Amino acid sequence: MKKHNFSAGPCILPQSVIEQAATAILNFNNDNLSLIEISHRSKPFVAVMDKACKLALEILDLENKGYKAIFLQGGASMQFLMVAYNLLEKKAAYLDTGTWANNAIKEAKNFGQVIEVASSKSQKYNYIPKNFTIPTDVDYFHVTSNNTIFGTQIKEFPKSNVSLICDMSSDIFSRQLDFSKFDLIYAGAQKNMGPAGATLVVIKEEILGKVSRAIPSILDYKVHISKESMFNTPPVFSVYVSMLTLEWLKNLGGIPFIETVNNQKAALIYNEIDRNPLFVGFAAKEDRSVMNATFNLIDESLKSTFETLLNEAGISGLSGHRSVGGYRASMYNALPLYSVQALVDVMQELERSF
Amino acid sequence: MKKHNFSAGPCILPQSVIEQAATAILNFNNDNLSLIEISHRSKPFVAVMDKACKLALEILDLENKGYKAIFLQGGASMQFLMVAYNLLEKKAAYLDTGTWANNAIKEAKNFGQVIEVASSKSQKYNYIPKNFTIPTDVDYFHVTSNNTIFGTQIKEFPKSNVSLICDMSSDIFSRQLDFSKFDLIYAGAQKNMGPAGATLVVIKEEILGKVSRAIPSILDYKVHISKESMFNTPPVFSVYVSMLTLEWLKNLGGIPFIETVNNQKAALIYNEIDRNPLFVGFAAKEDRSVMNATFNLIDESLKSTFETLLNEAGISGLSGHRSVGGYRASMYNALPLYSVQALVDVMQELERSF
Repeated sequence: MKKHNFSAGPCILPQSVIEQAATAILNFNNDNLSLIEISHRSKPFVAVMDKACKLALEILDLENKGYKAIFLQGGASMQFLMVAYNLLEKKAAYLDTGTWANNAIKEAKNFGQVIEVASSKSQKYNYIPKNFTIPTDVDYFHVTSNNTIFGTQIKEFPKSNVSLICDMSSDIFSRQLDFSKFDLIYAGAQKNMGPAGATLVVIKEEILGKVSRAIPSILDYKVHISKESMFNTPPVFSVYVSMLTLEWLKNLGGIPFIETVNNQKAALIYNEIDRNPLFVGFAAKEDRSVMNATFNLIDESLKSTFETLLNEAGISGLSGHRSVGGYRASMYNALPLYSVQALVDVMQELERSF
Repeated sequence: MKKHNFSAGPCILPQSVIEQAATAILNFNNDNLSLIEISHRSKPFVAVMDKACKLALEILDLENKGYKAIFLQGGASMQFLMVAYNLLEKKAAYLDTGTWANNAIKEAKNFGQVIEVASSKSQKYNYIPKNFTIPTDVDYFHVTSNNTIFGTQIKEFPKSNVSLICDMSSDIFSRQLDFSKFDLIYAGAQKNMGPAGATLVVIKEEILGKVSRAIPSILDYKVHISKESMFNTPPVFSVYVSMLTLEWLKNLGGIPFIETVNNQKAALIYNEIDRNPLFVGFAAKEDRSVMNATFNLIDESLKSTFETLLNEAGISGLSGHRSVGGYRASMYNALPLYSVQALVDVMQELERSF
């Protein structure tokens, strides 16, 4: 029996997508070749890449608005570097909401002055800073929309005239936003999109070409856009599975549909965390992530009983990140509501056992 | 029926590997989860990464010789940048044997002085330059062992005291060499190793840490070595399939075994190219690649007849690179001898039809 997969990423993907992926490995497009042994420049794969890019823009409602979608390699960590390389001329502002935001800041410092507008580091990143000022003379303002490790999520994005860049790795395609407020959005595939190895970047083209430094080809967004994500061999399999997942999401009803389900899942787990006297949530209530619910046992001595019950219920991937401990229920788009119900059942069973 | 897959890359992989990969997509390790939805830090995947790195060093006979093997993203094109970023302090020497060598030179120029010791560009890269001098005051000397597009291959590597760096993307694991002559070897997975999306880098550790520039974490070999290829989420699927292919190769008898088969395949096709009055080879005979045989029809009017015969025989991926034209038979490790025989049969059938 399939487990209830709460893994933080790489994470659960739609079962129908997994089955299609396995079929394509054996025989892609009924052409008697495997997906992973055909040329990336073959017509069937070029069609996959085109469709994946088109679906990404369509689902984000960014078609015909001056945006391009490209698939790259290297995950969000490579984007920490590419954003700065391509866009940071003198000064950039960053919001420090967690480990990944902090890593983005670290890379940017190699390329110019970085202004940290606010940080929740001293509170172990358990909330999203608010009421900060974004300088008007910066090249861009960078935020991380969802902090996987800590279970916090930006609910309202700050308004300013500065170019807004967002690492949306762990909540892209999960909730309705006006995506046209962002000039650049990037996301590693391995949460709401596909297998690790591909990174989606959605860029408003007009922001490019403004820095004075020479940009190595492989790091240059303009090069990748002009080559339609085929400057070099793309991660064929990861792009294909991302395309399937985007198709799955579109057919379900897109973001409006999945947002409703995601909110139901989040309500279910957070209600239980707040109700059940054995557990306590980690993140500030108002900043709680709809994707990753972080929580702890109040009495650590119940740990082994709880984990035995989780195992028996087929619940997998619930351990908190090694830097935080406790538990983390990651509830990405593909996680069904009944998996969250199964987790809540175990939490209630633990309570009853006292 | 499975086609005879002569694709230049991504390319044919062992059929047993493809079947294992499809199984792992559905249910990895009999753990009721897909390979692509588990954490890269889970024990089963950490074991895969460790095994892939260990097998790479073992097959290259580089164990206990001061080398580390790591898996990165971004293909050889990312290595063009990383090699220069990590190793080029002032001056480096490059041998220009083709499009990819040329791209490597282009990226290196962003970081220091590049001395092109020789180039075969004026002859459309149809041979490997020899009798050049490698300056003694350079940080390293960079070569491309096999030129996929043009079908040439370095048979004897130049001797010097300079650190030797090699892009071995299209012939790694295909022939016996003293790999300890190289200080750094890199290879995109998608020829002799696995699906696109992973890059193997094998580095003699002592060459690192010598440049004065700050290296962004994601581009720093030392960072990736210290994190055992897990600085960020690795391309899980591509690494897994690479591990399976390396295991397949080891079980067959490693490089000594596969080299014999590769030489048989190359002899078969080149003998036919030379014998058959309808065809002419592209590359200089002494520099012919064992991996990629490039050739042309002498009479272009036979093109459609030839291609119809190829189709009927189930031969796929034989078109030459768009920059060269003609035909290219890529005969990577996983291509069986009988596929080359099938191609030779078609060439002889074309001859008989006159």
